[in-house]
Amino acid sequence: MTDLIRATGLSRPTVSAAVSTLMADGWVEETEAPDPDLPRMGRPARVLRFRADARYVLGIDVGPHKIYCVVADLSGTVVSHARRDVDGPRTHAQLLEQVKATMRRALDAVPVPSSALAAVGIGTPGVVDDQRGAVVQAPSIPGWSSLELGGLFRRSVECSVRVENDVNLAVMAERWNGAGGAAENLILVQWGARVGAAVLVHGQLHRGAHGAAGELGFLELDEEPRGVQPDGLGPLESAAGTAWILRRAVSLGFDDGADAAAVLTAAADGEPRALQAVEEACAQLSRGLASFVSAIDPELVIIGGSIALAGDAVLASMRRHLGRRALVTPRLELSQLGDDAVALGAVRLALADAERRLLDVYAAPSSAEQV
Amino acid sequence: MTDLIRATGLSRPTVSAAVSTLMADGWVEETEAPDPDLPRMGRPARVLRFRADARYVLGIDVGPHKIYCVVADLSGTVVSHARRDVDGPRTHAQLLEQVKATMRRALDAVPVPSSALAAVGIGTPGVVDDQRGAVVQAPSIPGWSSLELGGLFRRSVECSVRVENDVNLAVMAERWNGAGGAAENLILVQWGARVGAAVLVHGQLHRGAHGAAGELGFLELDEEPRGVQPDGLGPLESAAGTAWILRRAVSLGFDDGADAAAVLTAAADGEPRALQAVEEACAQLSRGLASFVSAIDPELVIIGGSIALAGDAVLASMRRHLGRRALVTPRLELSQLGDDAVALGAVRLALADAERRLLDVYAAPSSAEQV
Repeated sequence: MTDLIRATGLSRPTVSAAVSTLMADGWVEETEAPDPDLPRMGRPARVLRFRADARYVLGIDVGPHKIYCVVADLSGTVVSHARRDVDGPRTHAQLLEQVKATMRRALDAVPVPSSALAAVGIGTPGVVDDQRGAVVQAPSIPGWSSLELGGLFRRSVECSVRVENDVNLAVMAERWNGAGGAAENLILVQWGARVGAAVLVHGQLHRGAHGAAGELGFLELDEEPRGVQPDGLGPLESAAGTAWILRRAVSLGFDDGADAAAVLTAAADGEPRALQAVEEACAQLSRGLASFVSAIDPELVIIGGSIALAGDAVLASMRRHLGRRALVTPRLELSQLGDDAVALGAVRLALADAERRLLDVYAAPSSAEQV
Repeated sequence: MTDLIRATGLSRPTVSAAVSTLMADGWVEETEAPDPDLPRMGRPARVLRFRADARYVLGIDVGPHKIYCVVADLSGTVVSHARRDVDGPRTHAQLLEQVKATMRRALDAVPVPSSALAAVGIGTPGVVDDQRGAVVQAPSIPGWSSLELGGLFRRSVECSVRVENDVNLAVMAERWNGAGGAAENLILVQWGARVGAAVLVHGQLHRGAHGAAGELGFLELDEEPRGVQPDGLGPLESAAGTAWILRRAVSLGFDDGADAAAVLTAAADGEPRALQAVEEACAQLSRGLASFVSAIDPELVIIGGSIALAGDAVLASMRRHLGRRALVTPRLELSQLGDDAVALGAVRLALADAERRLLDVYAAPSSAEQV
């Protein structure tokens, strides 16, 4: 209490009244045992604690190959998660049902009522209209284009739902607790079966005029444009994504029962056929990435997604290729968050949304009546 | 006077005192004959005029092929200009002398003392450190890299000198009085013998982490990087710039005494060999520009520089090629400013600088003593 009075500059009665309100609403509680190390002069100090577990937020990563749901408390601590692989063609209704089932699994593991869910953030590939919460264009997921995803989802939960491009969320997660730190201008390359990029300019996410900034996987490098591939992949991601790396490694003699992760891990261990496949993918991707670097001139490029399994092999190869292609070469780092980045960014988005809504109640004098 | 009192909300004596100060300093004058259409009740209205000709600014465009100097008054009206072609290798000292001689020609045409020069803006190709006023890297002008251009120039004038990348200045000029208007995210392609781009994000010029954002002409499109060419041109500008268009048109049978401007004008008139050369250059350039569009997703791309001489032929071809290569195609417009854009942007830069410095005198109470 004394700390709060000092920090706010308000009187003891004012702070005391505010604390009572917050305690009644469940945001603050008195800890049972005040810190014994604190000096005990005068009346015993009241020690308060923010109840981070008063509400929860949900972050969801929906991609063409997986659904990953993360539940976190208001301090951002992950308390539960659930994952499900998806593949093959399906309708958007089927995929949506799978997302909801995965979400329920994650929520069921947390012993609180569903009314404690304060906000949901969803990350999805493609061009997203974040204001409307709609997917505008998502070639990689059948039936996912022109979809009012936020609206459809809001029917299943009792809170606000925000939708954002998956790679944009990954870059938010990197800024929050991954690589990136203080870089004001950066490009995050999210590199798995699909390849996308998010662009941060002056510390702000740059969505572009149509929400389409950073669509690295759809770059056309050849003289003759190749267009979107039959499997929904863009021209560059189909020639440098992890599916291509797997095919290429197998064609070089790598175990043909392996999956992409096995090839990438083998490359990190120096296996020559895996290394060559990764090296060739880096050569391809750097052709596109160098253009992005020339357009934006970032101080840092973060390489994320499952390619990060290949570790320094990717970093060294990309450094070499970019150095030969870009006028000024930025710093290059591997993501620390791996495959969790999108869901963690969705948590961050939901937390920001929850904070705004929860604080709104205390901001406007008449808001209690409005609620 | 009455209008000023109403607009500022200050008392008549306060406004009167401020006007007297500004008149004494030469910024404001009373017009000889008050507007006869104004109603004449009570005492005659005092009609004041901002003396835009109290000071001048100078905008300079220094390129590998020309020097262009523009003198403008404080309202931005151009009152004098001088141009000089340059070619062949030279030292930076020689080029600097030519710039100063051209500047003197432009200033001599204005009947005011050189002390009336309030600020100078200089546009130059390459990577510029605008804080230091230094050229960091300028492959297209021999001896121009690592040059403290602002400092060297400040010795010849009695005012502040600002240095900026030439294409960045062109985009400022477009925003000021050319195309562009309200577009918040735009790319300006300055396309002549050299090809560069300036990037505007959220209405702000985006310089990048090293001042190198938008270096379109140095893009490497091929699998094997080609590097900077012996003539200082970047890989893409050497394969799509106006020098390439001229060579290509001549190889197709166009008059081999012609210059690039003649080929571009012929293309605008539908001459088939000129058209084909322009079309092939558009195919090349759109390969690089599509990457920039994918990175930034602008609402508008402005095509400026001497290529604009080819008119709708360029616009139609670029629209077609970009449409086949970019996921979302922005609006495309031709620049209205042509070859003057860089110098006019330099004028704009100098005006902004002059305004800040001139108003500073009135902002701080003790600044009169400091000056």
